[in-house]
Amino acid sequence: MEEYTCQEEYLRDLEGRAALPAGFRAASVPLDFFPEERRLETPLPMALTLLELVKPTDSFAGVFTRNAFPGAPVIIGRERISRRDLQVRGVLINNKVANAGAPGGRERAEELLEALAEAYGPDSGARGTDFFPASTGVIGWSLPTAAMKRALAPLLEARQDDTVLPAARGIMTTDAYPKVRSCRVGEGRITAIAKGAGMIEPCMGTMLVYILTDLDIPREELQEALGIAAAHSFNRISIDGDQSTSDMALILSSRRIRKPEGSSFQGALERLCADLARDIVRNGEGTTHVIEVCVEGAPGEEAAEILGKGILNSPLVKTAVFGNDPNVGRLLGALGDAWGGSGGGRRTGWGPFPVETLTLFLWEEPVFTGGQFELDPEKEERLSSRLADAAFDNSAGFPPHDKKVILRVDLGVGPGRAVVWGSDLSYGYVRENADYRT
Amino acid sequence: MEEYTCQEEYLRDLEGRAALPAGFRAASVPLDFFPEERRLETPLPMALTLLELVKPTDSFAGVFTRNAFPGAPVIIGRERISRRDLQVRGVLINNKVANAGAPGGRERAEELLEALAEAYGPDSGARGTDFFPASTGVIGWSLPTAAMKRALAPLLEARQDDTVLPAARGIMTTDAYPKVRSCRVGEGRITAIAKGAGMIEPCMGTMLVYILTDLDIPREELQEALGIAAAHSFNRISIDGDQSTSDMALILSSRRIRKPEGSSFQGALERLCADLARDIVRNGEGTTHVIEVCVEGAPGEEAAEILGKGILNSPLVKTAVFGNDPNVGRLLGALGDAWGGSGGGRRTGWGPFPVETLTLFLWEEPVFTGGQFELDPEKEERLSSRLADAAFDNSAGFPPHDKKVILRVDLGVGPGRAVVWGSDLSYGYVRENADYRT
Repeated sequence: MEEYTCQEEYLRDLEGRAALPAGFRAASVPLDFFPEERRLETPLPMALTLLELVKPTDSFAGVFTRNAFPGAPVIIGRERISRRDLQVRGVLINNKVANAGAPGGRERAEELLEALAEAYGPDSGARGTDFFPASTGVIGWSLPTAAMKRALAPLLEARQDDTVLPAARGIMTTDAYPKVRSCRVGEGRITAIAKGAGMIEPCMGTMLVYILTDLDIPREELQEALGIAAAHSFNRISIDGDQSTSDMALILSSRRIRKPEGSSFQGALERLCADLARDIVRNGEGTTHVIEVCVEGAPGEEAAEILGKGILNSPLVKTAVFGNDPNVGRLLGALGDAWGGSGGGRRTGWGPFPVETLTLFLWEEPVFTGGQFELDPEKEERLSSRLADAAFDNSAGFPPHDKKVILRVDLGVGPGRAVVWGSDLSYGYVRENADYRT
Repeated sequence: MEEYTCQEEYLRDLEGRAALPAGFRAASVPLDFFPEERRLETPLPMALTLLELVKPTDSFAGVFTRNAFPGAPVIIGRERISRRDLQVRGVLINNKVANAGAPGGRERAEELLEALAEAYGPDSGARGTDFFPASTGVIGWSLPTAAMKRALAPLLEARQDDTVLPAARGIMTTDAYPKVRSCRVGEGRITAIAKGAGMIEPCMGTMLVYILTDLDIPREELQEALGIAAAHSFNRISIDGDQSTSDMALILSSRRIRKPEGSSFQGALERLCADLARDIVRNGEGTTHVIEVCVEGAPGEEAAEILGKGILNSPLVKTAVFGNDPNVGRLLGALGDAWGGSGGGRRTGWGPFPVETLTLFLWEEPVFTGGQFELDPEKEERLSSRLADAAFDNSAGFPPHDKKVILRVDLGVGPGRAVVWGSDLSYGYVRENADYRT
């Protein structure tokens, strides 16, 4: 992981990894629209962003939010994914307005994509259904389609095949910085961008992820690879337990480069998604500590993930970490609560709580083992200092370093293991979310 | 609901309802112990508190936390409840030290109760197993049994049969004020006290509740009545989704007064528990809004409770309410997240999200209906003002009034209904929980 001392250093590094894979173009243009009667403070203008395949492809895949009240783009995206005959040309993304819960949201999204296809001209053969729509922003507001249509010609004008960075910027809302990850696999490349302002604005659509690759990978294989990678990355970060109405991750392949033999693509995709997921966690303006919870020895992998998130989502654990307090009691309380089936009292069926076999670590130091706390005032002092050292301030507009707090639980009962990532609960979180619209 | 303008007014009212039922005595004495090497700031001294039945009784019942890592008093309490031959003499309660996760916690609790029985003298026939232990405080610390034993003689000395108020004070930790509710049922009385500092310190054992009655009610009936009343009161408040290691509610009957015919006892107990539960929510020092979520038309009652708590526990909803922001999108997002089975991805099996039939209200104003938001700038302004009016400051040491924010969801799909209570998420919450120990 990089350590940056200033924003310029971070952006320079970002440029170095922003190369588009072969067969892709990208563009982003500002939109002149913003509803005047709304008092939303916008650090960045509303923008329209296009990720384009130079030639349509049948190799694409996607995963979407499990929120039962999804935005129109999620509904349409799921339909596109389920169609077997589709050739995809790209993704059209807007920030600031989520197009969730707004009247006629679906029709507006489709209408805009039809206008985009028209802007390509009659010879292109483009149709609205060739594109995925994506929107992130305030729930309940309608897409300003008139202003968006006016921006389509300039958007096509702005296409270039060099860098994904303008697109990474264009999909931001109150993100502190753009997020780009890329890697080479054999002769090919995977480049991905993410939008997600960590803890501060999940209702503006927590997370959008677009992964572009020139590696020739069949659609079914792509869907399976993305499903596995997302399960171990985007689905293992948890800022505040809220799953937004707009979450999505799409992967598009231009099929230009032959995929190398073996599993190197899957491994590369998983690492890339994990890095991007952690970029999202680091990005929260209210975040002062990134927390990694590693649960081992659980009854199964799903149990490990549920228990890890139980610790990660506990406001008491999160505020303790914010306060640099190695509060082992709260960790155990949260673990016991999750084991007991918190959240509506659903039973977990994992048997008795393994209090005798579990060991709890802060970093590498055991703090509870053999049914007893392993703490003394000096150790508490030492851990508190270490927590203070792991704190950071990312308000400068870049993720400063890889500092993090590591909580590890070994339950000693089974083979289940999962690592989950999240952030502490600070004054900044409350400020950002209480002052967001008003 | 009362409206108080100063603490004296509240305490006067409390005295008026603090009469002990016939056949009970109560006492509380300060403890001279506090671990010097710990830096815990304590607004109140550590205290030892006794609730005593003048004659042992076989009529008692209890409900306990579902946390899988419970404190020793919860483990012992569950055993006492399951024994069919037991005659109970009372409850011995300490604050400040939770006796959860500490080495030999169970042995220390039993040893202390043996010493209490001895202090009653050989003629009393008292045994340690005649008492319930209860502890609330920091997890992981050991009970200071030597200091506690020294306090037993003064504790028995301090017994009186007049008022429960010293006990209500003695079980407080950082509660802002003592909590007492009572009512008459026929010729008898129910008087109950609660400890629970709402949102600020659930790890000191969120909630202890002791309900005393002189009404002669058989044990089985008492357990059933308490179970129902707790399900609709203590289990329907949610400050931050954390269920503590020490939660318990006990009811003891002295069997002195004949119970009136009909269901008046059950109704009275349910009202009393609901009032006490709301006192706990109002008590959080960080609380600036009490939130009532009423879910109707749900697939079933359990579904209604899960969905209501899903809204209540969403940090985005809680911070929006703190910021006086009528953010309907966040409400719907949280509802959709809960309907989709948030929290480890468990499926709820309730069918498709009823977006067309659901209506969402803020107080009596519909804000989402027929699949669409019902909002305009004037309505948002009006609701924002109303949210600001519902805010309060209880730092004066008493619950100032019955102001609350009412969110109502009618899903229009079934007969399920539940009302849940919680609080907003404020700077005060973060401050209290981050600064608590360090």
